[in-house]
Amino acid sequence: MSANLPQEIIDALNMRLKSDAELIPAIAQDFKTGEVLMLAYMNRSALQQTLETKRATYWSRSRSQIWVKGETSGHTQRVESINLDCDGDAILLQVEQIGPACHTEARSCFHNPITESHELGIG
Amino acid sequence: MSANLPQEIIDALNMRLKSDAELIPAIAQDFKTGEVLMLAYMNRSALQQTLETKRATYWSRSRSQIWVKGETSGHTQRVESINLDCDGDAILLQVEQIGPACHTEARSCFHNPITESHELGIG
Repeated sequence: MSANLPQEIIDALNMRLKSDAELIPAIAQDFKTGEVLMLAYMNRSALQQTLETKRATYWSRSRSQIWVKGETSGHTQRVESINLDCDGDAILLQVEQIGPACHTEARSCFHNPITESHELGIG
Repeated sequence: MSANLPQEIIDALNMRLKSDAELIPAIAQDFKTGEVLMLAYMNRSALQQTLETKRATYWSRSRSQIWVKGETSGHTQRVESINLDCDGDAILLQVEQIGPACHTEARSCFHNPITESHELGIG
């Protein structure tokens, strides 16, 4: 793990985040192919840890704890770049995904199409 | 606008969504370039309307109302496909974006890099 972020960086970061945003949705995108891999949530600690370690680190809403992606599965995400959106309440990570992103072993979590009726098992 | 969705499709859709998910984060991605354009939220009505009209339709949290993207700006999103994630609480839209996605006139809302110190105005 890299050194802790200096306070001035944490302050500058907090200035960019929407003040009332506690849990911020974070999109992980494959930095080479552009494939959207998953959406998870970060609190400020998770975002700071992600910046420090360059490993995608989220807040698990079900377990109420910091969650380093791939910590148990080995399917980590090396962070290439991070962007905030225009109003500072969403995050886009460009990552190198090691192995599948999804716990189902699919490459991406977004593997359930619902655009057409037959995709919903109808017609 | 297309016809209303048949009840059996609405039922099948609701089966796929996480039961306690009221507002679901929805990622809009350029279907040709793969660029992630924005993140907004859908409730079930917004998702149904999106499926019916093939125009991305969200729930505005600030205005507490259904919001057809581009209704006033003309910067609409024609929906090419919709995918749910593995646990049914996030949506990925592949869209054809007319004009810029962001209210700042940037192509994508995710135009604020924060990976490096100098991007935060430090160092």
